[in-house]
Amino acid sequence: MANFKNRDIISIKDFSKSELLYMLDLANKIENRDCTDLLKGKTLANLFFEPSTRTRMSFESAMKQVGGNVIGFNETESTSFAKGESLCDAVKIIEGYCDVIVVRHFWEGSARLAAESATVPVINAGDGANQHPTQTFLDLYTIKKTKATLDGLSIGFLGDLKYGRTVHSLAHAFSYFNTKMYFISPPNLKMPRDYLNSLKEKNIFVYEDDNLEDISKEIDVIYCTRIQKERFADPVEYEKVKGFCKLTKTLLERLGVKKDLKVLHPLPRVDEMDSSLDDTSYGVYFQQARNGIPVRKALLASVLGSIS
Amino acid sequence: MANFKNRDIISIKDFSKSELLYMLDLANKIENRDCTDLLKGKTLANLFFEPSTRTRMSFESAMKQVGGNVIGFNETESTSFAKGESLCDAVKIIEGYCDVIVVRHFWEGSARLAAESATVPVINAGDGANQHPTQTFLDLYTIKKTKATLDGLSIGFLGDLKYGRTVHSLAHAFSYFNTKMYFISPPNLKMPRDYLNSLKEKNIFVYEDDNLEDISKEIDVIYCTRIQKERFADPVEYEKVKGFCKLTKTLLERLGVKKDLKVLHPLPRVDEMDSSLDDTSYGVYFQQARNGIPVRKALLASVLGSIS
Amino acid sequence: MANFKNRDIISIKDFSKSELLYMLDLANKIENRDCTDLLKGKTLANLFFEPSTRTRMSFESAMKQVGGNVIGFNETESTSFAKGESLCDAVKIIEGYCDVIVVRHFWEGSARLAAESATVPVINAGDGANQHPTQTFLDLYTIKKTKATLDGLSIGFLGDLKYGRTVHSLAHAFSYFNTKMYFISPPNLKMPRDYLNSLKEKNIFVYEDDNLEDISKEIDVIYCTRIQKERFADPVEYEKVKGFCKLTKTLLERLGVKKDLKVLHPLPRVDEMDSSLDDTSYGVYFQQARNGIPVRKALLASVLGSIS
Repeated sequence: MANFKNRDIISIKDFSKSELLYMLDLANKIENRDCTDLLKGKTLANLFFEPSTRTRMSFESAMKQVGGNVIGFNETESTSFAKGESLCDAVKIIEGYCDVIVVRHFWEGSARLAAESATVPVINAGDGANQHPTQTFLDLYTIKKTKATLDGLSIGFLGDLKYGRTVHSLAHAFSYFNTKMYFISPPNLKMPRDYLNSLKEKNIFVYEDDNLEDISKEIDVIYCTRIQKERFADPVEYEKVKGFCKLTKTLLERLGVKKDLKVLHPLPRVDEMDSSLDDTSYGVYFQQARNGIPVRKALLASVLGSIS
Repeated sequence: MANFKNRDIISIKDFSKSELLYMLDLANKIENRDCTDLLKGKTLANLFFEPSTRTRMSFESAMKQVGGNVIGFNETESTSFAKGESLCDAVKIIEGYCDVIVVRHFWEGSARLAAESATVPVINAGDGANQHPTQTFLDLYTIKKTKATLDGLSIGFLGDLKYGRTVHSLAHAFSYFNTKMYFISPPNLKMPRDYLNSLKEKNIFVYEDDNLEDISKEIDVIYCTRIQKERFADPVEYEKVKGFCKLTKTLLERLGVKKDLKVLHPLPRVDEMDSSLDDTSYGVYFQQARNGIPVRKALLASVLGSIS
Repeated sequence: MANFKNRDIISIKDFSKSELLYMLDLANKIENRDCTDLLKGKTLANLFFEPSTRTRMSFESAMKQVGGNVIGFNETESTSFAKGESLCDAVKIIEGYCDVIVVRHFWEGSARLAAESATVPVINAGDGANQHPTQTFLDLYTIKKTKATLDGLSIGFLGDLKYGRTVHSLAHAFSYFNTKMYFISPPNLKMPRDYLNSLKEKNIFVYEDDNLEDISKEIDVIYCTRIQKERFADPVEYEKVKGFCKLTKTLLERLGVKKDLKVLHPLPRVDEMDSSLDDTSYGVYFQQARNGIPVRKALLASVLGSIS
């Protein structure tokens, strides 16, 4: 059986298939059980060097709902770090106040560095454009719940596949599950070569296009992402692609998608997916956000050794 | 008996006289009872799109004192909403993390919109210059406690009656209680016509003046408000009125007010009321602030169906 | 026996030797005991008018680990105080929401003022360059734990002795304990005359130098401090002194310090002490930070009358 006690959660690549499945199973148990005092007396430090509302509040709610304490800061409050303190020092001080650290930081590799400095477990809540593993856990959890299985699915990844860290991590995770992957993006936002090569080496079916139409009848899941203006150095490049695709109920019906297609989105959305999907059987993104709670409860409780 | 379970608290106008009295009674019960675990396991999300310290801390303390959890943000932390997310989307995501939402937002009507998007109960903590119903509940609670009754009082409303949302809501609430209302303000900050007409239609006694002197012997309660610089587009207009009235102990004695007059103020104050009143029997505004705790406990517990 | 119930913690100078020792003893008891519900139902308001991460999080974690609630704000959120509210009014409102107040404010004397306004106990978490008594308690606690005694030690204070409030307070506290004090600083950052005179009046051994070398074999403890750029009006003055001393493992070995020398630092550090000391027996500064937790638990519990 998997043992997560004292383990850091830095990248989805650190986890085997059986470990992924174990964690999803644990999340499911926690969701269906009263765990009000599971982490009573334990303290989480939420270190958000880059601002966040959703991810931060999700971790905070998860921890508190199982009886734990939360301390921390959000970027706008972290001005005292401007005194010149290193990330490593900050971690070594703050771990004296807590039992587990969640860190979001704008530098790629920062979460790994924090984990190496800390003696308490560290969970990565996003390190720049690199990794955001708890998002991947909740994406998997949502697909497993809504499709009943993770095996043998056809998944369409849509939008910004170049900078979208959630796409990179989820594609990696699905490489364990005999998945067909369809990557649909504007030409300048394609899935990076090294990710594609890595998938192909594992004999994953990979398809690339700039158009959803040709493959719309094949797919079981659309994983739609926002094209993030803040990732573009040149605003002209952003203007070219911002209207690339707009998912609507009407479009999905016109494309003849499968009746049990599910549309996920890590949110927030801007105009790539409109509210007409909210009340359809396709749209499961609000449920997906909600699934962050049991998944993060499971991750926190397991690295703290309070459940298995 | 009133049933508040799952009900939104958006405007004081949504409540009947018996519902108002029921809630004040509930607050009184909660104040005199040990409720440490009343909302254990429940989570409040405090969404302050406009910054607040007092109201936010009052809700937070109320929720925590009855064993509940609080998550949330204050305006300065909400930068990630700048990614372009709508209020409705934010509410639909965050309700997945919590059991009840408190929202303050700078748009009039925003709280109603949030309530329509959410499946969990929503409490309005101020939507622009519009409504702030929990303030009205605590104003009523304070008057009931210090005057022993709400019926048949003469109330002087003082200061900015044009923009002051607390005045508008409180005047409406007192229209149920056979109240005589005296509106004392500078000419350019008078009570809006539609509010006055609405009171007159209910045969409420209404008096307007720019001077406290003439009616100072009549009134049982002064509800004093700050003239808010931030509501004036033109600073010249603000300069004209900022020194309009300054309540002091000496002034009240000179005016020969009733011995058992009570002075309320929603706070913060600037120079419209000085500290000489703090330790008199007149000044009950710090007690009024404190009364936010039992009132908000009662509102939270009742919309969560944990008390009745 | 000392009784701290309802007492304010404003300056280390308010405490007798026996009171200091009593509090250190209490911290030690709390550290070695399960106190999960010690302050259940009690609420701390953290009022940080000046931003802080470490001190704020330390208080917050301490309070929560003993079952208490925390509300509050950090400077960046306190914009609503710009409405013109006085510190005294803020305290009088907020004490209605809580049982104990922790305040950090940029004005010297602010904490004393807050304590005079409040009926609940107030703990000073730093008032400008003046006092930061809880830091001194944890400094003493760390020295007592690592040196087994507070009596008869030789202590070297190093760095900015002019503006460093932690040095001023700690030197005062050690005036009770038959201490030899060595003050090592750049010429323009020497210990202020009045502090030195006050020590000399108590017949304390006092030595001043701008060089660690001459006394390096004498001392049992180095209390190293950061030279704080933000305290200098003139950047040229800062440039002159910023490289004054850099503690390293190699330096300490070359200077032939005592084998059981302990190096403390209130942190954060910049370049006055490098990471080569982190894993030596000398460096106890991360342990020192961690000691803030039991010390602050003891202070909170004792002013709330929940332990003795």
